[in-house]
Amino acid sequence: MTAAVGVIGLGAMGSGMAQSLRRAGFDVHVFDLRPGAAAGFARDGGSACASAAELAAACPVVVSVVVNAEQTEDLLFGSGGVAAAMAPGSVFVMCSTVDPQRSIGFEQRLEAMGRLYLDAPISGGAAKAASGEMTMMTAGRPAAYAVCEAALNAMAAKVYKLGDRAGAGSKVKVINQLLAGVHIAAAAEAMALGLREGVDPAALYEVITHSAGNSWMFGNRMAHVLAGDYTPLSAVDIFVKDLGLVLDMARASKFPLPLSSTAHQMFMQASTAGFAKEDDSAVIKIFPGIELPKAKP
Amino acid sequence: MTAAVGVIGLGAMGSGMAQSLRRAGFDVHVFDLRPGAAAGFARDGGSACASAAELAAACPVVVSVVVNAEQTEDLLFGSGGVAAAMAPGSVFVMCSTVDPQRSIGFEQRLEAMGRLYLDAPISGGAAKAASGEMTMMTAGRPAAYAVCEAALNAMAAKVYKLGDRAGAGSKVKVINQLLAGVHIAAAAEAMALGLREGVDPAALYEVITHSAGNSWMFGNRMAHVLAGDYTPLSAVDIFVKDLGLVLDMARASKFPLPLSSTAHQMFMQASTAGFAKEDDSAVIKIFPGIELPKAKP
Repeated sequence: MTAAVGVIGLGAMGSGMAQSLRRAGFDVHVFDLRPGAAAGFARDGGSACASAAELAAACPVVVSVVVNAEQTEDLLFGSGGVAAAMAPGSVFVMCSTVDPQRSIGFEQRLEAMGRLYLDAPISGGAAKAASGEMTMMTAGRPAAYAVCEAALNAMAAKVYKLGDRAGAGSKVKVINQLLAGVHIAAAAEAMALGLREGVDPAALYEVITHSAGNSWMFGNRMAHVLAGDYTPLSAVDIFVKDLGLVLDMARASKFPLPLSSTAHQMFMQASTAGFAKEDDSAVIKIFPGIELPKAKP
Repeated sequence: MTAAVGVIGLGAMGSGMAQSLRRAGFDVHVFDLRPGAAAGFARDGGSACASAAELAAACPVVVSVVVNAEQTEDLLFGSGGVAAAMAPGSVFVMCSTVDPQRSIGFEQRLEAMGRLYLDAPISGGAAKAASGEMTMMTAGRPAAYAVCEAALNAMAAKVYKLGDRAGAGSKVKVINQLLAGVHIAAAAEAMALGLREGVDPAALYEVITHSAGNSWMFGNRMAHVLAGDYTPLSAVDIFVKDLGLVLDMARASKFPLPLSSTAHQMFMQASTAGFAKEDDSAVIKIFPGIELPKAKP
């Protein structure tokens, strides 16, 4: 019998993950709040479910790829919630970027109901989700891994196991977002200064990407700026949210984060100035007195 | 006849560059203010000069690897200065990290005296300087390149040519230092938050260095933190200076740099708290309420 895996949330990441599971031979059940999204997926195989609860009742592994903690909370414990519909011993794989304390709470409440839980935020972007090459930052009970490990390996090239209960997966993911956000804002600040100083931006990009000042984000996002293309692969408002999570996590233990708080202000400035839905590299538009490269016609 | 090249300043970078030139077959003349440094180098070949002016009179290419703009100014135009001692048509290769306006001024004054000049800051660290594999960020007149190009290629794996007069080399170098400084401080902030949250620091390092949150500096400097080894490869006070240069450059055109100014404050805090001469990764010591990994006994 083919193992059934459910995927809830067919956005850029979730649809790719569902494809990777189907390609690996799983019996993939899908649900999405947007009408037609699940049916569209199921045309090439798998089952479109009419509700999240229907999906949860059919699948020993439920992979959740919704936007944030509030959606996860509602999905699990709201009306028609997944938690009650899941069979005892089945596992809820939580892939969203959330405050680690929320993830710890989900595990506790599900365990009290006899359900398993995996803290499993993801990284790598839509292309790697579709090819099964993304990264998962996971933590959870050995019993949870035992149920879902084959599915994890079908979705991700690298499954980091960071602890034997929920928390460390979300913590590491939040810290990754700290660095990603600060690095995008720093890349924008550096490129903006170069433009202000009359440095050729393509030459600056070439030198920095081969020097000690490089970051993964500088190389990736400043290519968007050079191309003048702010089509959102990941939007400014994602980092308003994610750096907010970083700061919330640290505030709970009164821990100071000077650079994260500064970068958060920069993304909020970009968002409120009108660039909320543009690519996150549009944070460079907060800098005055420069002319950005134009898009090729 | 073997071409004569002079190297002034036999610190970590300068001594390696002089070695690379000697290995490439140049007749290398060296000078250093510290007694014995030049003689020590010359034991394996080349000439130790008694003064910078003596070196400058003997070499059509003079490579300056001193600490900052003030030392360069004094070297060129102070008593016994190199500018007057250089033969007309010889070239002064300025490798220090300085305010670009200072570099532009050096070129103007040397040109008025009939001497050539190259704006040529360097990057890559002592090991790459010694192996001839460092990077040079250069700008200058074609006539200057014509005289010194063979020497540049002997010292660097990559010679970026960024403009036909002085300025762009120093500007790109300063912008690289912006990113390097912010990335070191961000790496420290992220690792400190991980420690505060009880995340295993080695696991965090492993995940981040394989994720979109990575930077060249995170991988390099957080290895020092994990090892508890703050032996200065590059000291905290270097970034007090270099981020100061970044801010001075931007202030001249009233350009705001939120992250650079925040990172500068962090390095100044570390310096004044007693870590000025430690490795720049010691900026992590400004964070309260955490226990850093100890050095292996």
